[in-house]
Amino acid sequence: MLSKNKVKYIQSLRLKKNRQKNNVFLAEGEKIVQELLLDGTIKIMQLIATTSWIETHQPSLKLLNETLIEVTESGLKSVSNLNTPNKVLAVVEMPQLKIEQESVRHGLSLYLDGIQDPGNLGTIMRIADWFGIKHVFCSTASADLYNPKVIQATMGAFLRVQYHRISFEDLTQQFPDVPTYSAVLDGENIFKTSLSPKGILIIGNEGKGISNEIVSKSQYKIRIPAASNHGAESLNAAVATGILCAFFNQQML
Amino acid sequence: MLSKNKVKYIQSLRLKKNRQKNNVFLAEGEKIVQELLLDGTIKIMQLIATTSWIETHQPSLKLLNETLIEVTESGLKSVSNLNTPNKVLAVVEMPQLKIEQESVRHGLSLYLDGIQDPGNLGTIMRIADWFGIKHVFCSTASADLYNPKVIQATMGAFLRVQYHRISFEDLTQQFPDVPTYSAVLDGENIFKTSLSPKGILIIGNEGKGISNEIVSKSQYKIRIPAASNHGAESLNAAVATGILCAFFNQQML
Repeated sequence: MLSKNKVKYIQSLRLKKNRQKNNVFLAEGEKIVQELLLDGTIKIMQLIATTSWIETHQPSLKLLNETLIEVTESGLKSVSNLNTPNKVLAVVEMPQLKIEQESVRHGLSLYLDGIQDPGNLGTIMRIADWFGIKHVFCSTASADLYNPKVIQATMGAFLRVQYHRISFEDLTQQFPDVPTYSAVLDGENIFKTSLSPKGILIIGNEGKGISNEIVSKSQYKIRIPAASNHGAESLNAAVATGILCAFFNQQML
Repeated sequence: MLSKNKVKYIQSLRLKKNRQKNNVFLAEGEKIVQELLLDGTIKIMQLIATTSWIETHQPSLKLLNETLIEVTESGLKSVSNLNTPNKVLAVVEMPQLKIEQESVRHGLSLYLDGIQDPGNLGTIMRIADWFGIKHVFCSTASADLYNPKVIQATMGAFLRVQYHRISFEDLTQQFPDVPTYSAVLDGENIFKTSLSPKGILIIGNEGKGISNEIVSKSQYKIRIPAASNHGAESLNAAVATGILCAFFNQQML
């Protein structure tokens, strides 16, 4: 049973300040919870699940009794962030992240300068996961990874890709030898450029792009060429990220 | 002033059956309406705008008096589909579409087999616009272009890219010489394949992919290779479309 206090507590975690105060976040839905359980490195503080979910999964669950809370479907609805609540919701401890020096030095990383849309951030985490990118760095103006909508949109990628908030200056001071690439509208045509197999790819805000300061501090400027007869102003930020990551990856293989 | 009947009528256009019955759809927001006015080929049946919008735009507007309805911000809110209503909303006649034979024969087109998410469809229309693709074909199971959320997400691309509902069989009978490419998980690695500069690229449903029937009828199977250390199951459908279109376009340039 969910006590009133527990309902209040879980609902309060929709707000960033409450997630940070309690050092936890919400992960919802069968697929994401399944991945959490398999992964095993992230601590589950509370698992709120319907009777039918528990019946199917209990034999393999290694949780303390007080961690697991059985609820009805309407009980789940009272704490869910989904339009169609999905059997199980976990309150999860925020992991301690540590930058893997070697993968930043020798692989591709992303730097998000102000990505705001939760769906875009989640989709970018999925792209990073697909292409084996370990680190997504971001400026202070970027969306919070632990927003329930972002966690949902990552489809579990948050378990494998690290999201670090760090200023671009601090990042490049830590990794002075890693080339930096700004994705801009007036850069070099990626169809005709050879990209280094390592680097930090910078993606800008959905409306404003990358800040001038960061563009000027980055070493290279690249662009996805549009067809000559196009009328479009821009590509969606996550789509542009996907295309650029694919071209970097092509160089690596 | 918006009459009660007019409010009811505009609200009714959120439903596909009502859009079809009246042969109109809604386009909302300053940017999209601006593009509609500049484009000039699509008939605006009704323009509902705030006083401040009208004051700025009236000198250049060539609309009949009965077409333009001045509203307050709360009046606009009563008919808007946006969380933050945006000064102007148009009721627009659905255009008569005609397949441009030459561009299907010699360029790249898309076939969407059951894309369901309005945001994905809008984003795919934007991708097509960027890469100069004239035609996005779709199966009956695909989302409706004239859903207000889709129109919004296209950012105006619906003015330049045609969306046709047609069975895959009918399409390939009309264009027997155009190669067809299914985007699947077990296709040829696009990093190592040479793609024809013309073709029909098939994108499947977000969850289920392309139907077996269509895969078996298409000539080529292609995939976006994942990193060997990846944990991801899939890329978002619009992101995959963007990556594949970029690789096709690279071959054309």
